[in-house]
Amino acid sequence: MTQTLALIRQRLFSSVLSDCLDAVGYRNQAMHAGIRPLDESLVLCGRARTALYVDVYDAPEGENPYELEIQLVDDLKADEVPVFACGASGRIAPWGELLSTAAKARGAAGTVMDGLTRDVRAIRDMKFPVFANGIGPLDSKGRGKVAALDVPVEVAGARVAQGDLVFGDADGVVVVPRAVEAQVIAAALAKVAGENATREALARGEKLADVFRRHGIL
Amino acid sequence: MTQTLALIRQRLFSSVLSDCLDAVGYRNQAMHAGIRPLDESLVLCGRARTALYVDVYDAPEGENPYELEIQLVDDLKADEVPVFACGASGRIAPWGELLSTAAKARGAAGTVMDGLTRDVRAIRDMKFPVFANGIGPLDSKGRGKVAALDVPVEVAGARVAQGDLVFGDADGVVVVPRAVEAQVIAAALAKVAGENATREALARGEKLADVFRRHGIL
Amino acid sequence: MTQTLALIRQRLFSSVLSDCLDAVGYRNQAMHAGIRPLDESLVLCGRARTALYVDVYDAPEGENPYELEIQLVDDLKADEVPVFACGASGRIAPWGELLSTAAKARGAAGTVMDGLTRDVRAIRDMKFPVFANGIGPLDSKGRGKVAALDVPVEVAGARVAQGDLVFGDADGVVVVPRAVEAQVIAAALAKVAGENATREALARGEKLADVFRRHGIL
Amino acid sequence: MTQTLALIRQRLFSSVLSDCLDAVGYRNQAMHAGIRPLDESLVLCGRARTALYVDVYDAPEGENPYELEIQLVDDLKADEVPVFACGASGRIAPWGELLSTAAKARGAAGTVMDGLTRDVRAIRDMKFPVFANGIGPLDSKGRGKVAALDVPVEVAGARVAQGDLVFGDADGVVVVPRAVEAQVIAAALAKVAGENATREALARGEKLADVFRRHGIL
Amino acid sequence: MTQTLALIRQRLFSSVLSDCLDAVGYRNQAMHAGIRPLDESLVLCGRARTALYVDVYDAPEGENPYELEIQLVDDLKADEVPVFACGASGRIAPWGELLSTAAKARGAAGTVMDGLTRDVRAIRDMKFPVFANGIGPLDSKGRGKVAALDVPVEVAGARVAQGDLVFGDADGVVVVPRAVEAQVIAAALAKVAGENATREALARGEKLADVFRRHGIL
Amino acid sequence: MTQTLALIRQRLFSSVLSDCLDAVGYRNQAMHAGIRPLDESLVLCGRARTALYVDVYDAPEGENPYELEIQLVDDLKADEVPVFACGASGRIAPWGELLSTAAKARGAAGTVMDGLTRDVRAIRDMKFPVFANGIGPLDSKGRGKVAALDVPVEVAGARVAQGDLVFGDADGVVVVPRAVEAQVIAAALAKVAGENATREALARGEKLADVFRRHGIL
Repeated sequence: MTQTLALIRQRLFSSVLSDCLDAVGYRNQAMHAGIRPLDESLVLCGRARTALYVDVYDAPEGENPYELEIQLVDDLKADEVPVFACGASGRIAPWGELLSTAAKARGAAGTVMDGLTRDVRAIRDMKFPVFANGIGPLDSKGRGKVAALDVPVEVAGARVAQGDLVFGDADGVVVVPRAVEAQVIAAALAKVAGENATREALARGEKLADVFRRHGIL
Repeated sequence: MTQTLALIRQRLFSSVLSDCLDAVGYRNQAMHAGIRPLDESLVLCGRARTALYVDVYDAPEGENPYELEIQLVDDLKADEVPVFACGASGRIAPWGELLSTAAKARGAAGTVMDGLTRDVRAIRDMKFPVFANGIGPLDSKGRGKVAALDVPVEVAGARVAQGDLVFGDADGVVVVPRAVEAQVIAAALAKVAGENATREALARGEKLADVFRRHGIL
Repeated sequence: MTQTLALIRQRLFSSVLSDCLDAVGYRNQAMHAGIRPLDESLVLCGRARTALYVDVYDAPEGENPYELEIQLVDDLKADEVPVFACGASGRIAPWGELLSTAAKARGAAGTVMDGLTRDVRAIRDMKFPVFANGIGPLDSKGRGKVAALDVPVEVAGARVAQGDLVFGDADGVVVVPRAVEAQVIAAALAKVAGENATREALARGEKLADVFRRHGIL
Repeated sequence: MTQTLALIRQRLFSSVLSDCLDAVGYRNQAMHAGIRPLDESLVLCGRARTALYVDVYDAPEGENPYELEIQLVDDLKADEVPVFACGASGRIAPWGELLSTAAKARGAAGTVMDGLTRDVRAIRDMKFPVFANGIGPLDSKGRGKVAALDVPVEVAGARVAQGDLVFGDADGVVVVPRAVEAQVIAAALAKVAGENATREALARGEKLADVFRRHGIL
Repeated sequence: MTQTLALIRQRLFSSVLSDCLDAVGYRNQAMHAGIRPLDESLVLCGRARTALYVDVYDAPEGENPYELEIQLVDDLKADEVPVFACGASGRIAPWGELLSTAAKARGAAGTVMDGLTRDVRAIRDMKFPVFANGIGPLDSKGRGKVAALDVPVEVAGARVAQGDLVFGDADGVVVVPRAVEAQVIAAALAKVAGENATREALARGEKLADVFRRHGIL
Repeated sequence: MTQTLALIRQRLFSSVLSDCLDAVGYRNQAMHAGIRPLDESLVLCGRARTALYVDVYDAPEGENPYELEIQLVDDLKADEVPVFACGASGRIAPWGELLSTAAKARGAAGTVMDGLTRDVRAIRDMKFPVFANGIGPLDSKGRGKVAALDVPVEVAGARVAQGDLVFGDADGVVVVPRAVEAQVIAAALAKVAGENATREALARGEKLADVFRRHGIL
């Protein structure tokens, strides 16, 4: 599996994956445009490990507010990607330098969340790919906590199940469900070749109409 | 005309153009702050070619979903700027590397849209100025298509007609209607000189109150 | 006081300040994630001077629309930070290169606003820390003006009073009220040390659960 | 068909239809809560005739801005329901008293739109069921026009195809796709009976836990 | 003047006024759909008296927070309409039963605001027409205060100057500027007659296409 | 306690409670204006029982999705008020006719939620006071479930703890924390008397300025 991931990471783009998901009828697999990489030069490619957050308004004495979060990160395998469904509240930054350090030490491929991220300069220095809905300093303690691990979630409009292929680059994050993974990747590898021919023809000044008629790609 | 555009591109800024539009009573000519350049170091200056999009929810077999888009790009002249009115839905990224390649080959000055853009790293490498409402991988096929070309539109709060001067830099995008173009450009060139004197006085530590009384610029 | 500010600027982060404010029950001191630095490499640390804006729809002849703004900037002392409460309208860019030049000449530590900023490339060249809710070219004249100076305001969800410590870095802006300043800074300096130990343990691959049990930091 | 519609109108509710759609895996068939009836006492039940709108910014001389709208209304059959997909702009009120009069004269069952409606007091007096995203006086001329008739659309989050069953009451609007219509209606008729038994048990003060265990309905 | 107002109140509607404003090129005179009447059966028709609010975050001791508000209401003449521009914050309910009582006692024609209103049941009992952006109990003290009276403002997207005709009914609020008032009212009175003929033809079942061709009204 | 509640229900209003909470420095106790009563003629007054919801995207086989919801309703005592914190997603209608029936049978005083409500016509017929953020048919199964009971929550901007006094009428919902309950109620009962005198003076046409000087109430 790792070899496949390496190939995908090297050859593919979120846009071509999105097009090929569209072609097989999966049209809601790209996360909303609010989800951005901390570092646009990094590519994220791995298998989802999901966490579902609940907004809370209290941090009871004696309760570890990070219990399930710690459990997930300590359980990460190589090429896995924590995917945090924090919802629309924008109240918390559940990910930062320390979790990035721990996740990277376990070989995780990166992290995706619809919450905020903090310690962003340190994370960028680590070259660890993090995609988030914004940047902010607020800790999750007393604001949100993990309610369940490895359950199906929706993050920024895309459904994610444990084990789904998660791919992120400068254009955004796309989720490829298991059921169509092989088909979508094969189609994407083929499409990339056609795009190269199209690009060259266009750069030579050929008419778009002609090139599109020939290659069917835009 | 090209000489004028070169002069504007070299000497002016979106902020001074916005101030001079304000001064002649055109107060809604700056696009909303959501419209950002892919590359803040590039300046866009050219004549608008407008396209009006309609959200669609279907891509009928046998229909070319890009028909009018292709027609517009193939028809671009030097210094023209495709301006895409995609509306508030945020569902599509109608512009990417291939259209940038084709537009650049025809001498277009850049592109502006209130939709998303994709292939952003490749577009930045081409040094082609693109201003958009965000970044995302979703193709327009089955989500949106061009309903009309070269009609008056509104993009991010600013009205744009075919042939209007469109100027974009790191501060945003401003549209200068034909009716006031000569007047606004003359005023802007004059104001830029006054700003230089103001800046120098302020850098020397003079009181803002005194400098503003003298130059009337802030 | 300046020595304390220098120490804070050098050693602390917005995230650790936010955590220590949380710990003493001040849980709304971080501005919303929309407030971003023009330059993520700069740190802002100083004392707030507040300005309260009112949206206007008219610029009467013979009235100086910048009167109180000029008064505030001309009155700035070293290490002060103009904090502009412009509200939710997003109609104005009250800060730009000229005000940055004047503020910097008086030793101001930076500026924070929930309005837009313009002339952003020039401001970045000056290395003057500006945090704003976006970038746009629209002048405040006829759109907004200062209604009061040095009154308590709310900016992007955080209450700010004159003299409050304002701290901004790549993760956002945090406001430390006078009443808890000494306590929060002491706690933050202590927490930073613990974070270093935690980070090193995690980088070595230790279990998060163990490290968190030992240091109590995440 | 008309008999079935009469039975549905008489016996069913939007909430029970929504539950039964959920049960067969169609979980996005209820329109958003912004879509409200002008008159909560009326029930709408009929077959969708869809119209897709495009926002426009101009009304060219000599063009009939209502051409396709008129064509759709003149073509309405008994029990049909014009469903207008106007999108998120909130700029137009495409429906009013005159179109209601014409539609009612042809036996239409009501109208649904995500745009605004006007002449609401007159429409209420006619007892014609109209569901809209708000009320406002702005005509569509120069703001929006129909781009296509009888194509698949999305209205307030629900997909609607020509001929789909559209049901609206005080709780909102639900769309039942052809593919599951028979199954969903049969299940809904059965569920309504169970709800009556549940309601009676609860009104007698029985424990919810016991009643839910017995009937499985909540 | 009062006679004209009585005629307008009796014969016209917000929708026909909006259409006639459109026809003379004033296309932003209808307030957004969020502005609703407390009582849909009442018609508001009068001359605007404007108040511009500023959001505040403090109520200094010894300051009368309602000073200008009281001044405006005490100064109201017959058929005048207080129009409050409170902005987008949604934090205050500046109008309630007591101000309604005072305004009604002076013969005011009603009130319009983009803030909230409170004491709504009492106001409805008084049959005093109030149009607001919602209902809520929060007093303006320490949240907002009037910064200026009788200045041009924008309320829910429509520009309002002192003396402008303000018309509200169940379909919303329309503002008719002085410059086009006579022209718009004359056109509206004429259009109402045509609408009656159109309605009757449609109710008889005539084709919309034919009726529209004959009357040009929809 | 029940006697006190009866007195409050009879004599007080949400607006006067809000003013008196303001006066003792509790300025965020009114829920946002989106929270509306199903029936504006009903008054809700009781003690909060809180439920915290988490958005879910799955309904696992064999799990009772309503478990804690049922537990809360079965445990309701006279004059208690279920308060549901469903968050900003707007995806679910957790309350309907059956839960209203069960809650009413136990003597509950009403229900408040920032989610949607369904079966609204039946609930109105029962004269059971329900305040919600909208109306919609979507069941909570597979969309949201209760994560915790009787914990502190925030609902539409107001903090609510178990046992807090919750008061709702046509103007909205106000939460009175235990710590200031006696003080706020005493002040509110006193203020209501002053409002009566003010109202009468204003109805006689006295100047607001004079009446406000005399009574200090607006």
